[in-house]
Amino acid sequence: MAKVAIMGYGTVGSGVYDIIEMNSRKLAKSAGEAVELKYILDIRDFDDHPRKDLFTKDVNDIINDNEISVVAEVMGGLHPAYEFTKKLLESGKSVVTSNKELVATYGSELLAIAEKNNVNYLFEASVGGGIPVLRPLSRCLSANNIIKIAGILNGTTNYILYQMIKNHKSFNTALADAQANGYAERNPAADIEGHDACRKIAILASLASGKEVDYSKISTEGITGITLDDVKCAEAAGAVIKLIGYAEFLTNGKVYAHVAPMMISNGNMLSGIDDVMNGIMVTGDAVGEVMFYGAGAGKLPTASAVVADMVDSVIHKSRRKIIGWEKTDEDIAASDDDMKFRYFMRAEKSIDEVTAVFGNVTELDSLAEDESAFITEPLTASDAAADREKLGSVKTAIRVLD
Amino acid sequence: MAKVAIMGYGTVGSGVYDIIEMNSRKLAKSAGEAVELKYILDIRDFDDHPRKDLFTKDVNDIINDNEISVVAEVMGGLHPAYEFTKKLLESGKSVVTSNKELVATYGSELLAIAEKNNVNYLFEASVGGGIPVLRPLSRCLSANNIIKIAGILNGTTNYILYQMIKNHKSFNTALADAQANGYAERNPAADIEGHDACRKIAILASLASGKEVDYSKISTEGITGITLDDVKCAEAAGAVIKLIGYAEFLTNGKVYAHVAPMMISNGNMLSGIDDVMNGIMVTGDAVGEVMFYGAGAGKLPTASAVVADMVDSVIHKSRRKIIGWEKTDEDIAASDDDMKFRYFMRAEKSIDEVTAVFGNVTELDSLAEDESAFITEPLTASDAAADREKLGSVKTAIRVLD
Repeated sequence: MAKVAIMGYGTVGSGVYDIIEMNSRKLAKSAGEAVELKYILDIRDFDDHPRKDLFTKDVNDIINDNEISVVAEVMGGLHPAYEFTKKLLESGKSVVTSNKELVATYGSELLAIAEKNNVNYLFEASVGGGIPVLRPLSRCLSANNIIKIAGILNGTTNYILYQMIKNHKSFNTALADAQANGYAERNPAADIEGHDACRKIAILASLASGKEVDYSKISTEGITGITLDDVKCAEAAGAVIKLIGYAEFLTNGKVYAHVAPMMISNGNMLSGIDDVMNGIMVTGDAVGEVMFYGAGAGKLPTASAVVADMVDSVIHKSRRKIIGWEKTDEDIAASDDDMKFRYFMRAEKSIDEVTAVFGNVTELDSLAEDESAFITEPLTASDAAADREKLGSVKTAIRVLD
Repeated sequence: MAKVAIMGYGTVGSGVYDIIEMNSRKLAKSAGEAVELKYILDIRDFDDHPRKDLFTKDVNDIINDNEISVVAEVMGGLHPAYEFTKKLLESGKSVVTSNKELVATYGSELLAIAEKNNVNYLFEASVGGGIPVLRPLSRCLSANNIIKIAGILNGTTNYILYQMIKNHKSFNTALADAQANGYAERNPAADIEGHDACRKIAILASLASGKEVDYSKISTEGITGITLDDVKCAEAAGAVIKLIGYAEFLTNGKVYAHVAPMMISNGNMLSGIDDVMNGIMVTGDAVGEVMFYGAGAGKLPTASAVVADMVDSVIHKSRRKIIGWEKTDEDIAASDDDMKFRYFMRAEKSIDEVTAVFGNVTELDSLAEDESAFITEPLTASDAAADREKLGSVKTAIRVLD
């Protein structure tokens, strides 16, 4: 029998509890032994909870209990999650988590501590919620050099953009709608400014490259600048605009990454990922494109991934799993100008003025007579910016996902 | 250093060779040690091959070589693949394979032999080609009771249906086109009659239930009865027809499975899987719906999964991975009448005649005046057949994937 603990009884924590209660037979079968929940750590009181006997406010109860082999850290936030995780790993317990902020910030250090102590630090739930993606990326695609990752990694922004695309709502109306439905926080900055997606693409890129990709260096742009006109213009061109976490792995060992709205043609599977769903497209040099799709957030989906990591840690109690990356001193970040993208632009200029600056472009149907909409040839960020400046009156410049 | 062998130098076998050559550094990193190819078994001569020194025609060279720890069986067919695999497992070597026929037919026995000899028998490539699906299903969704699996598991039939849907080609023209492009065999029966998809859904269902699902008992219908009119009628209703391998896991422990063309509304992610691509939608009680998408066949994609299993076997050389199922004496096959599906039908009858028999139906735009197209309420197979008989002149009856 494996004894486990939950730290943090919020949305995900209560989902982990529910699954352990509800699916105990399945867990025992998957893990090869029964999985028993011994503690739930939370600073709040849960006196009416049917298992109020499990609750504690003192993390030392868990740290000092030698029976506990696996702990789910689902508190969120950096502190005290970081300190607790470190102590648990050092005391020889595996830790699994959904905490993307912690993994993106202290992942390298925590992975090294886990390795040193011969335990697991697993975080499948930190990217894509319940979608299996980190383990498939590192285990099932292990024969591939990963070339590219492009993901819809944030459900809130995907919901807002989907409302703009599907129901032609304005950004503000769609945001208010997301808030009313509980898909966006009252302060939605972490989602709509792209910070959440940034942590997730950093984790994916680190895992794919084997080296820490520093999230704070990833160019991150949210969706607040996207207008309904942009969406409608893309629609007329057979495309949608989605917030994409993007990473490309260059042959020189450098990693390019950004978070930004991108234009995606309707032929691309990512264009069909609607509502609050997430999808991650991975391109490997042998397998080509594979995509993982599902619920990127929510109580039970996220808990599904957390509990699967707990089961894995029970199976591999005595031996760490090789899923992780190393901290590196070399600067592996590729510059914006190492890359070329096509750009979707809208400008208050004639198409002749546009071609005079950009040369060959693909003209799109524009929404107004005094405006041109077009897609450029592939350009570096510097060239795109310089040309944009030169043309003037450019209202929109969004990279195309090819 | 891990020494490995390939059995069968056909399309997949040469892909495995290519990846081991091309990505040796990545493999060493993933496996934790170098992976060296020592033998290639094939009855044909490859005198011009740059590594002709590796070729042998005698499987005993591999069986009797104690240095070999992992063998890729990519010969296809039941015999001698079965006998070779058995001997290799018994001699303490892990075997990985893309051979769906062998896994569906002798999987239970070979898994038991592998377990007894403390080695691995892995077969990620047998379903979905390069798409990670078997390992994610058994490892990442281990906290879920699997409720349902619906997959586009055969690229040939998906290509044919896609040509009918996208370019309004007739079945025969689309088939000829598939043959001309190398997507269909000269004798295409195994694909278009659904036998290939049947092996694959049997493997998926066995893995998800933990018990052998006998492929020979799975009701299997191909796509030869699908007409362009069916496809057009579905299109007008905002849907497509795809060949689906379907499995549902009932709460009484029984497993229902079929292979058949199904109608899928455009809102379902499976509807967007075009061309020769595959996609598998898995529904778990905690995670909800997740989908895995990618190339379901082809040299390098399939080899990508084979080599990943080789890497996994190198990592877990001394210890079997728990991915498999058991043979069972109980009859776990659910009957057709345990299930209800809505049916898409076309009949040379008036809609009044239709409702007189079927009661409440959803009427669709029909292609001709003397014909009605409609979707029934959920019906058992027996009720659907009886009502169909009663109405008469039913040209098409296709289950709806809900």
